[in-house]
Amino acid sequence: MREIQVRTNKRTEMVDITCNIEKVVSDEKIIEGLIVVFVPHTTAAVTINEGADPDVKTDITNFLLNLILKDKAFKHSEGNSDAHIKASIIGSSETIIVKNGRLILGTWQHIFFFEGDGPRNRKVFIEIIKKE
Amino acid sequence: MREIQVRTNKRTEMVDITCNIEKVVSDEKIIEGLIVVFVPHTTAAVTINEGADPDVKTDITNFLLNLILKDKAFKHSEGNSDAHIKASIIGSSETIIVKNGRLILGTWQHIFFFEGDGPRNRKVFIEIIKKE
Amino acid sequence: MREIQVRTNKRTEMVDITCNIEKVVSDEKIIEGLIVVFVPHTTAAVTINEGADPDVKTDITNFLLNLILKDKAFKHSEGNSDAHIKASIIGSSETIIVKNGRLILGTWQHIFFFEGDGPRNRKVFIEIIKKE
Repeated sequence: MREIQVRTNKRTEMVDITCNIEKVVSDEKIIEGLIVVFVPHTTAAVTINEGADPDVKTDITNFLLNLILKDKAFKHSEGNSDAHIKASIIGSSETIIVKNGRLILGTWQHIFFFEGDGPRNRKVFIEIIKKE
Repeated sequence: MREIQVRTNKRTEMVDITCNIEKVVSDEKIIEGLIVVFVPHTTAAVTINEGADPDVKTDITNFLLNLILKDKAFKHSEGNSDAHIKASIIGSSETIIVKNGRLILGTWQHIFFFEGDGPRNRKVFIEIIKKE
Repeated sequence: MREIQVRTNKRTEMVDITCNIEKVVSDEKIIEGLIVVFVPHTTAAVTINEGADPDVKTDITNFLLNLILKDKAFKHSEGNSDAHIKASIIGSSETIIVKNGRLILGTWQHIFFFEGDGPRNRKVFIEIIKKE
């Protein structure tokens, strides 16, 4: 298992971690197999979406901020229930295929760490399943 | 493949199944690898979120109940379209890393069975991929 | 890795791809293991839900269309931010267990390609992890 560090700078944002994951694939000399990207936080998540135009991540983030208001009447007293809800909707893990030593992503796909309750120092765990 | 049974008691609720999954890891003597948790129902799902304060699962459940109303005008005649929608938003599977014989979860992370149309007797399937 | 082609016919729809995935399991003679279904597009996704009554997929699709309006004021200028948001909410991958040469799905579960910005010619990638 490998671990990467992510520094987030806003309360809610999407941070592109594609290069970090590509570096793991390269360092570990994975030719063919799977990469599991797992976020071990309950107010953060991982998602795959367009990385070319930064407006896409802004639109996704703003939509979720408007859908799940921070100051709605929640029971949990830490003031971050909205971030917990976002984490369950976006999800804690993504599984990506590796072939010929490269992550098999679509043309526009990048991997994003979704921060819901930053800024914080965060971690992402990566497990590798190599095929024979 | 292993199977666990989950008894749900409300129409919509999150049931902590972390101990059940940990028992599988222990029984199967998995040292390193992956666990895939799969929910074979179309009105239920699986999610990972905070397990320390039960108010978090209440906030998540209540948010989804308010967002996706049971009695909205749906075409499907069984009265549970809201639960089908919740299942697709939360998702049918989670993949979790195992290391040194333990599930690698964050400090506050627990694994929850999301019930959308209970109470019912439900199943969860678990597949194990051991690393050499 | 295997690849399947999906032709979508509407801007937003769910296309049942269960048979395509079952054919891969059969062709590759997988007896036991995992199938990872990965959608390499940023305005499409994959989900598992009820396949018996087509009204369920209509209800899910309509709900998302009403929740995430196409013509909301978005920053991304291509007019498909709604589809990018849907893709992150539904998710890019699903992992399904294979046992005795068959996909282990629940009685009502089918695998759907979720199209958010069609009609288009789309691809789905499938990776297979066989157990010894």
